[in-house]
Amino acid sequence: MPPEKSSLPDRLLQQIQFVIEVDKLKHVYRHTILTDGSRYENDAEHSWHLALMAMLLSEYAADPHLDLLRAVQMVILHDLVEIDAGDTYCYDDQAARDKAERESRAADRLFNLLPPDQAVEFRSLWNEFEVRSTSEARFAAALDRLQPLLHNFATRGSEWRKHSVTRTKVVERNRPMAEGAPLLWSYAENLIDEAVRLGYLAGE
Amino acid sequence: MPPEKSSLPDRLLQQIQFVIEVDKLKHVYRHTILTDGSRYENDAEHSWHLALMAMLLSEYAADPHLDLLRAVQMVILHDLVEIDAGDTYCYDDQAARDKAERESRAADRLFNLLPPDQAVEFRSLWNEFEVRSTSEARFAAALDRLQPLLHNFATRGSEWRKHSVTRTKVVERNRPMAEGAPLLWSYAENLIDEAVRLGYLAGE
Repeated sequence: MPPEKSSLPDRLLQQIQFVIEVDKLKHVYRHTILTDGSRYENDAEHSWHLALMAMLLSEYAADPHLDLLRAVQMVILHDLVEIDAGDTYCYDDQAARDKAERESRAADRLFNLLPPDQAVEFRSLWNEFEVRSTSEARFAAALDRLQPLLHNFATRGSEWRKHSVTRTKVVERNRPMAEGAPLLWSYAENLIDEAVRLGYLAGE
Repeated sequence: MPPEKSSLPDRLLQQIQFVIEVDKLKHVYRHTILTDGSRYENDAEHSWHLALMAMLLSEYAADPHLDLLRAVQMVILHDLVEIDAGDTYCYDDQAARDKAERESRAADRLFNLLPPDQAVEFRSLWNEFEVRSTSEARFAAALDRLQPLLHNFATRGSEWRKHSVTRTKVVERNRPMAEGAPLLWSYAENLIDEAVRLGYLAGE
C-alpha cells in the first residue's frame, strides 16, 4: 500500500498489508449453505458468525472462567490458513489426509507477513485452536461445529444429503463439542435426532 | 428451531433463534467493493474484517488501556441493525436524514429477541458505538472508517468516482478517526492525498 511516508512506522505499513491480504478470506467458500438456502457461505462470514456466538453463548462454556477475548480471537483467525489451503469439507476423508500439511504451510506464509511478535501471537492462537489444548480452544471448536449444524438443519440437510453423510459421521465429527460446551452438545444431539426423524440426515 | 426438549433451557432456545436470525446480515450489501474488485462486500464480512483489525491494530488506540474485548464486541454487532434498516451509504445525505430513526427501530426489534439481560447488554454496546462515548467506541469507529478507505484505494476509488465523492467529503467523514487512533488517521490522511494525486478521488 502506498503511501510509504517516512513519518509512518514500517510496522504499521506491514500490518496494513496484512489487512489487505486477509480480504481474500471472503472468497473462500465453505460446504455450508446460508439458512435461507440462497448460496454458499464464505469463511469471513462464518468467522463473524462464530464470534457473535462466542459473545452470546459463553455462559455454556465448560470452563466458568473462560477468557472470552481469547476465544473470540481464535474464531476470528481460525480459518485464515484456508486463504492458501482452501476449505476442506469435514466429511471428506480423502482431503483430510494432507489437510494438516497444507494448512501448516499456509500458516508459515500468512502469519510471517506480520511483524515478528504478532506472527508468533497469531500462530500460537491458531495452534491452540487446532489442538484444542485450552478451554478457550475447546469452546471455540464447539462453536465451529454447532454453527454448520444449525445451517444444515435450517436447509433441511441439503449438504448432508448431497454428500451422503450419515448420522454416525455427524455424531463422530461433533461429539468433541461436549468437551467445550456440554449443554450445546446436548442441544446438538437433539438436533441430530430431529434431523434423522425428518429425513434430513441418513439414520445409519 | 426444534428441538424443544424440556431438558434444554428456554433461554438457550431463544439464543439459538437469534443466531439463526443474524444470518441475514450476510445478505446486507455495502457500498464497498472487495479489494480485488470482484463484488460488493456484505456486513458480516465487513464486521469480521474489523474484528481482525482490532486484534491487529490495538496498539494504535488513543487509549493505552483499551478494553480490547469490548472494542471487538462492538465491531461484531455494530451493523446488526442493518438487517432491518439496510446499509446507508455514508456519503448519501438524503438517506442520512432518517438513518437514526430506522436503526433505532431495528435495534428495538432485534435486540429484544434476546433474553432480557443480553438485550440490555447488546443494545448498550451498540449505543456506545453509535455515540462514541468511550475510547473503545472511538477506536472501533476509527476501524469502521479505515477499512472502507483501504478498499476504496485498492479499487482505485471506483465507488468514490461512481458517487462523485470529493476529498472534502472524505476528510470530513473520516477525521473522527483521529480521536480513536491518531496514527491511523495520519495513515489515512496520506492515503487520501495519494488517492487525489492518482486521480482516484476528486481533489475538491
